[in-house]
Amino acid sequence: MAAVKTVSEVRAHGGVQGVYSHASTATGTEMTFSVFVPDHAEGETLPVLWFLSGLTCTQANVTEKGEFRAACAAHRVILVAPDTSPRGEGVADDPDGAYDFGLGAGFYVDATEAPFAEHYRMWTYVTEELPALIGETFAADMGRQGIMGHSMGGHGALTIGLTFPDRFAGVSAFAPIVAPSQVPWGVKALGGYLGGDRAAWRRHDAVAQIEDGARVPALLVDQGDADNFLAEQLRPELLRAACEEAGIDLTLRMQPGYDHSYYFISTFMADHVAWHAQRLRLRSPA
Amino acid sequence: MAAVKTVSEVRAHGGVQGVYSHASTATGTEMTFSVFVPDHAEGETLPVLWFLSGLTCTQANVTEKGEFRAACAAHRVILVAPDTSPRGEGVADDPDGAYDFGLGAGFYVDATEAPFAEHYRMWTYVTEELPALIGETFAADMGRQGIMGHSMGGHGALTIGLTFPDRFAGVSAFAPIVAPSQVPWGVKALGGYLGGDRAAWRRHDAVAQIEDGARVPALLVDQGDADNFLAEQLRPELLRAACEEAGIDLTLRMQPGYDHSYYFISTFMADHVAWHAQRLRLRSPA
Repeated sequence: MAAVKTVSEVRAHGGVQGVYSHASTATGTEMTFSVFVPDHAEGETLPVLWFLSGLTCTQANVTEKGEFRAACAAHRVILVAPDTSPRGEGVADDPDGAYDFGLGAGFYVDATEAPFAEHYRMWTYVTEELPALIGETFAADMGRQGIMGHSMGGHGALTIGLTFPDRFAGVSAFAPIVAPSQVPWGVKALGGYLGGDRAAWRRHDAVAQIEDGARVPALLVDQGDADNFLAEQLRPELLRAACEEAGIDLTLRMQPGYDHSYYFISTFMADHVAWHAQRLRLRSPA
Repeated sequence: MAAVKTVSEVRAHGGVQGVYSHASTATGTEMTFSVFVPDHAEGETLPVLWFLSGLTCTQANVTEKGEFRAACAAHRVILVAPDTSPRGEGVADDPDGAYDFGLGAGFYVDATEAPFAEHYRMWTYVTEELPALIGETFAADMGRQGIMGHSMGGHGALTIGLTFPDRFAGVSAFAPIVAPSQVPWGVKALGGYLGGDRAAWRRHDAVAQIEDGARVPALLVDQGDADNFLAEQLRPELLRAACEEAGIDLTLRMQPGYDHSYYFISTFMADHVAWHAQRLRLRSPA
């Protein structure tokens, strides 16, 4: 396990908000992530909640604007926020520098297409390497995890949650991309990273996963009805239909007047943390 | 009254987080400020809480990182955050471009020294022009106001609160500069804006104001004990001594392990909003 470097550690809400980096074997790059650890007794471990961020974001956006610390401190849950792509010299980017592919837009897949396959291995990074690192480095009980995310990160939370239903006590999302195979952001990203064979896309498309038999006990999704991306890119009605067909308990809350921003996320963050905490309490501590 | 331009309005925590600008007659520049208005009935007015920001900040820092909206929505209090200096073409800055004077460092005074006297009139802006604009433009009950601030803005909140004890139901601060005449930041700023006659500084120095007879019913101050600026620039012990001598009810809370950042501010923001809300409730609505 590569050494974890401390970028910064600051006291906040009775705990420690840290930013760290490490040499990732999955991506072959230095990766940065943030962790909030609430106050806890020596030797005690706390459950872990993942927050996967959206297009253009790094770990910093939710760390600064997510308003999760008060709720995480109250419920005594660690929050981990990874970056959204590999970065640095030699990391391929969108040929036109677009915001929706390449840097800041890893889409939580392991790319198979050149030149992205070399570094864009965010699936392995977020599902294997970083969880192992968190478990070894922090006061984390990896037997109790939940996952949430926003937009592209909501897609990541849904697809990872559906792939590892036993790992996560809860899966939730803010304004997620629910069916990337059917929307422009997703078609560009999955095509660019995974190639033209759409069969390979299905395990990175929450609606397709559910159609193919993936199940989770329950999903919580908040979606602003004034979100500019709602009709073209997000399409929560596709998730609703898939969950109804599959018998998945989906709570989909259309929030009147809310947009796609962190003002929306921060408004409902405490609800999501409380929802996850309730589910995490049903699991036995390590 | 000049027209108020809407820079942005976003739904958040059931209300509206707006950013606005207007042509200020006080500063002779376009000034930007933010206002959070909680959900309210048509025709209803809500009390107003001011947040004055610190060196290098604009209205954006607290708006994005302050974590005040949940508390302001719960207590139904408007929050107004002004910028910290005039800005734009022709506005004089620190000759060396230092962070602690000039742009982003107006220190809430009306400058009398050239070349700053032309635009640096933040005292008049924050105590006269902007309050009038807020009262005319928003659902604000200007008979019920509180004021708080951080660092240089804590200095602003204390000096304005001590100057207008009947206007504000409460005065609070995060890591304030309490005695600018006695610390490097303040000596540079008050000397630069007001000139060498230290008698003119006293009404912009909270400790000196208290020594000269200014009084407020109560003060709440939070101060991190890991704040890098504590010993040299902030010196809360001077405020404590002045309040003890004057019989002012000061609650000064030294917060172990906290620094000077918004991670500190956001941790105690809900406490401050609740403290102000309790005092504002004792005043009759307009």
